[in-house]
Amino acid sequence: MLLAHDPARAFVPYPAVPVPGAPTGPLSGLSFGAKDLFDVAGYPTGGGSPLVLAMSGIKTVNAPSVQRLLDAGARFVGKTHTDEFAFSMNGRNAHFGTPINGAAPDRIPGGSSSGSASAVSNRLCDTALGTDTGGSVRAPASHCGLYGIRPTHGRVSLQRALDLSPSFDTCGFFARDATTFARVADVMLGADPAPLPARVRLLRPADAWALIGDEPAAALAQAVSRVESVAGAASPCTLALDSIDAMYTAYRQLQGREAWVVDGPTIERFAAPLGPGVAERFAWSSRLTDAEVAAASVFRERFRTHLAALLGTDGVLVLPTMPDVAPLLSADEAALDAYRANAIRLLCTAGLAGVPQVSMPLARRLGAPLGLSLIGPAGSDRSLVALAQAIGG
Amino acid sequence: MLLAHDPARAFVPYPAVPVPGAPTGPLSGLSFGAKDLFDVAGYPTGGGSPLVLAMSGIKTVNAPSVQRLLDAGARFVGKTHTDEFAFSMNGRNAHFGTPINGAAPDRIPGGSSSGSASAVSNRLCDTALGTDTGGSVRAPASHCGLYGIRPTHGRVSLQRALDLSPSFDTCGFFARDATTFARVADVMLGADPAPLPARVRLLRPADAWALIGDEPAAALAQAVSRVESVAGAASPCTLALDSIDAMYTAYRQLQGREAWVVDGPTIERFAAPLGPGVAERFAWSSRLTDAEVAAASVFRERFRTHLAALLGTDGVLVLPTMPDVAPLLSADEAALDAYRANAIRLLCTAGLAGVPQVSMPLARRLGAPLGLSLIGPAGSDRSLVALAQAIGG
Repeated sequence: MLLAHDPARAFVPYPAVPVPGAPTGPLSGLSFGAKDLFDVAGYPTGGGSPLVLAMSGIKTVNAPSVQRLLDAGARFVGKTHTDEFAFSMNGRNAHFGTPINGAAPDRIPGGSSSGSASAVSNRLCDTALGTDTGGSVRAPASHCGLYGIRPTHGRVSLQRALDLSPSFDTCGFFARDATTFARVADVMLGADPAPLPARVRLLRPADAWALIGDEPAAALAQAVSRVESVAGAASPCTLALDSIDAMYTAYRQLQGREAWVVDGPTIERFAAPLGPGVAERFAWSSRLTDAEVAAASVFRERFRTHLAALLGTDGVLVLPTMPDVAPLLSADEAALDAYRANAIRLLCTAGLAGVPQVSMPLARRLGAPLGLSLIGPAGSDRSLVALAQAIGG
Repeated sequence: MLLAHDPARAFVPYPAVPVPGAPTGPLSGLSFGAKDLFDVAGYPTGGGSPLVLAMSGIKTVNAPSVQRLLDAGARFVGKTHTDEFAFSMNGRNAHFGTPINGAAPDRIPGGSSSGSASAVSNRLCDTALGTDTGGSVRAPASHCGLYGIRPTHGRVSLQRALDLSPSFDTCGFFARDATTFARVADVMLGADPAPLPARVRLLRPADAWALIGDEPAAALAQAVSRVESVAGAASPCTLALDSIDAMYTAYRQLQGREAWVVDGPTIERFAAPLGPGVAERFAWSSRLTDAEVAAASVFRERFRTHLAALLGTDGVLVLPTMPDVAPLLSADEAALDAYRANAIRLLCTAGLAGVPQVSMPLARRLGAPLGLSLIGPAGSDRSLVALAQAIGG
């Protein structure tokens, strides 16, 4: 049965069409939503854009990541809202509205997997698929008090899902508790190609921690201690190859160019009216030069090598997921932009390096949740989830 | 065959689904579009709102007014954009964009039947269905240089069409030339229940003409002479019962209350983000008191009686359709609001009285078209079209 009542406004209000799944399986008893970038048979795929929704038509085949959950016995309850073209991190969609943050209703849910995080945090379903390009699972996980993962790039299928920036796009998911998170991870990830050893080498990137204020850092201190008590004391390290600003710039240029290649034709064809922030970012993206993009691409390769060397096969970074708790719903665009720029500086490590990151809801401040993250080597996703379960359990 | 190329962005970009019609008939050879308030089998009905579009599902039955054109041999080419919830007169939809005015591409097309007027003025189809509540056919007809009609209230079916304000809503249509306009009128209107006599009594409402500037009035002078040469000299008369301001207020209150009854539940349920102007109008509508609406309702009854007496069975008002040519695309919301307030003062006569009005593209100014209107007694629609054809032909 599909969801009839949606007080969180987490789901796109498509007419309910049953989506058949396996009667039993490892996810029996769990319900799930899917971000409206994934095709689900019987539904359009809107991507948070009225024009994309109009062009969609009704899909007839499920995206493989949706099908995997269905085959495991999870029950589909609806498609969840996303930021427009998934090109935002705050969860405010100028056309469809803002899903309610179940952990802090006076604050933004975060995005672009806003509806998925809203649905899970409001207990409207047990897990939900999201995508994470620059933080679109990790940010709303931190803001809504959820476990969330950005997997190793390419590990979980994004077939029959709308692209944003393919070289960064990943398929992640959310859960309220570590046990459910691990159950879903078993199905979505399977066994690790590069599992972490029993004893990991915990790393604390000083330059990443320097990006956040004293108060959020203090709020996270107890969670860090908990991580250290499970995984061993953290050694200090430096994330940036050149500087965090260089990482930030390279990430934005590469993502912006790809986003413009993917969505620019639609935006130009229809002179698509875009919401605040999204419009400015696409306009900025459209002006990137080939030279800028080429330099950023070289930088990314060097950064990947640097981070792979830093992590080896047993390194795990412990760092804040986001600079702080979610901004208030009343925050203006300028405040959100400033917050976003700082957040991307934290979030771009996993994206640039293509490595997995898990956010754990282990801290609170100002009555709202704040996530602590683990980043591991490529292919260690399931091990990271197990570590998160050992820490959180 | 459906339209593949839409340089005017007049059509909602739904996947093309063939809509069968009669192989021959009185409208053979004509193509038509239908405003996206009318159901067309195989398509959603979006009403210019992303959330209404999401909720729509695919319709399986044609609206009777669409079916009537198909049965007459006209060929359906697509669904046309509308202002959000049809609650605007300028044609700028914050979610779907602004269709291009084929007669003045640097100016707004007018709305809410913006896409229909755009499609016809850009020669993407020969005729198109629109709806007119407060001017939504007449305004874009004037702005885009088209013939357009607001029929007698209740005369043309609005079944399977989204409501705005049912006691004002009408189903109208557009054409580029008087002959095509008359062909479509034959099919959509049939014979008049109250035809005009061969010799009409032409009336020139001094208070309506006083609403427009000297320059638009001068631009319309030759067209008025042409009307008089066909229909006889116009006698001066006064439209307003109390004052034009009282008409304006009563119209807005009655329309606003109905619009809020119709669309308020959707807007509140989803905290629907509305575009500029539309948001303010719905907010205003939500605050109307029962006492205001009751007084406006009494006023409307008195005005109907007054206008019926003024027109008798042979009276035809000749008046400007709009205060001036279409505002430039660069106009800000404040300028558009001021223009709209003046326009409603001109347009509300036919709406309040439930009588038919035809706008004729007989004047130009500043390189853009300007419409002249005829208003006749209830049930004289087809006669008015014939008069327009005699004048324009």
